[in-house]
Amino acid sequence: MSGAVACFAADWGTTHLRLWALDASGAVLWQRDSDEGMGKLAPGGAFETALVRAIGPDMPAASVPVIVCGMAGSRQGWAEAPYATAPCESPGAADATRVPTATDRLKVYILPGVKQVSPPDVMRGEETQIAGLIAREPEFDGVVCLPGTHTKWARISAREIVSFQTFMTGEMFALLSRQSVLRHGIGEGWDQDAFLEAVSGTMSRPAGMAAQLFGIRSSGLLAGLAPAAARSRLSGLLIGAELAGARPYWLGQRVAILGADGIADAYEAALAAQGAQVERVDASDLTLDGLRAAWAALKETA
Amino acid sequence: MSGAVACFAADWGTTHLRLWALDASGAVLWQRDSDEGMGKLAPGGAFETALVRAIGPDMPAASVPVIVCGMAGSRQGWAEAPYATAPCESPGAADATRVPTATDRLKVYILPGVKQVSPPDVMRGEETQIAGLIAREPEFDGVVCLPGTHTKWARISAREIVSFQTFMTGEMFALLSRQSVLRHGIGEGWDQDAFLEAVSGTMSRPAGMAAQLFGIRSSGLLAGLAPAAARSRLSGLLIGAELAGARPYWLGQRVAILGADGIADAYEAALAAQGAQVERVDASDLTLDGLRAAWAALKETA
Repeated sequence: MSGAVACFAADWGTTHLRLWALDASGAVLWQRDSDEGMGKLAPGGAFETALVRAIGPDMPAASVPVIVCGMAGSRQGWAEAPYATAPCESPGAADATRVPTATDRLKVYILPGVKQVSPPDVMRGEETQIAGLIAREPEFDGVVCLPGTHTKWARISAREIVSFQTFMTGEMFALLSRQSVLRHGIGEGWDQDAFLEAVSGTMSRPAGMAAQLFGIRSSGLLAGLAPAAARSRLSGLLIGAELAGARPYWLGQRVAILGADGIADAYEAALAAQGAQVERVDASDLTLDGLRAAWAALKETA
Repeated sequence: MSGAVACFAADWGTTHLRLWALDASGAVLWQRDSDEGMGKLAPGGAFETALVRAIGPDMPAASVPVIVCGMAGSRQGWAEAPYATAPCESPGAADATRVPTATDRLKVYILPGVKQVSPPDVMRGEETQIAGLIAREPEFDGVVCLPGTHTKWARISAREIVSFQTFMTGEMFALLSRQSVLRHGIGEGWDQDAFLEAVSGTMSRPAGMAAQLFGIRSSGLLAGLAPAAARSRLSGLLIGAELAGARPYWLGQRVAILGADGIADAYEAALAAQGAQVERVDASDLTLDGLRAAWAALKETA
């Protein structure tokens, strides 16, 4: 260890806790993952116990701040951190909910999520990724796409989240591929042609989606559709319908896809096929950068 | 019991077996339900065991036909009954797969399902409901809608299934209401206004569906959307998108909804709100009527 822990940064989602220990310069001393996500913990004190367990033998001697983002700030979490309202900057430490702890060595700040009143929408965690992007690139003006279980599209201008929209595409893919009748014909692997053809199909005719979904099953029974093609077609039908719905976000805009995994690849290919201007941002450290920015603001106000 | 069993009729689906004993005139002597659906039985002989168990002490002394429709005729069923190809009449006993049995008192005929080559689609069981409708009303010319886990729309003319299309609406509703993030805000009850407003929303803009689905969650968190309204809105968003996709089926057509339950009520209200000409047909005995018609044809050819 090259220095003393000066701050903990925590990305605390539904299924995982990702914890970083930072030194006074903001450099990462160590990083630890735990599966004690919000979904496994009772609201309240169980979160402190899980945090202390994750810190383990590395509990600092002096009191340090803990900057938390994500579902730990929801009503079912550690403590509710009320939403900021878009249009707004990503909420920082000044907006955080200060949570009392049993130990006096941890000063916990839970960052708020962001809500939108009309149409109603919410995010918790993504706003901190966006804060990380803006910390890196303060002049960013355009649209970000954050693919995931609940994919978010957000318009960013003058450091603010101007508006955003959430699509359940990822969760529908998981449910349909694993638990619906389609699971019988879906396997591993990827077929890019099948994916792009499906994207194009629902982009031009999104109303047909529920029928085209069943067509995956029929094509498996009648035409021997390969399991990898079936999986790619399912993904393409869902993403194509999303792109049709999100068109006002990406059409004629600069779009940054925050993500490094296969699903971000799929969004990039689908958008590129529509002629959109797409760039990729490796999202792996964006949340950390956003948490660091909140800590820096805390030091300024202290 | 008013007479001897002359025929068994069986509607054998994925989750249930519905069995009728008919006398020589076609009248129902008794009817029995079993939960030994296709999903619980290994392909092959397990089906005969389940059938004999359902017949119980009422096994006739002489050999009788057993007319079967539904998923028992699929590849994972008792024996595969290859599909008839639309356009076609609902397949009858002459097209059935004759399955050998251990007992010589049951002569089993499994009716085929119907497939469509382009766009690829399949049905197993619904074609027998349609046969029942045509047995009652041979001149029927129009569209039938069979709401269910996989809702079917079919064009019927000159006793034939001309074309059909399957929508996964019911299965999506089950998955999203019970297993997605939306389950937290969904409860029992029904809100007809919320349903019709959602139908209208996705009918006019089906591309927005995946975002409007997440809006159910956001509206629960931010605006206190009631659990019954959330459930009705989910149903409306899915059915609205289906009606947009199925418009070529119902627009300007005579539409018969085959069903007597709540989901058929929902389809009727949604179609009526679009100004469609809708009639309801109580579907409870349609399958039996279709199986009876197949038996009658068998007697003629014998």
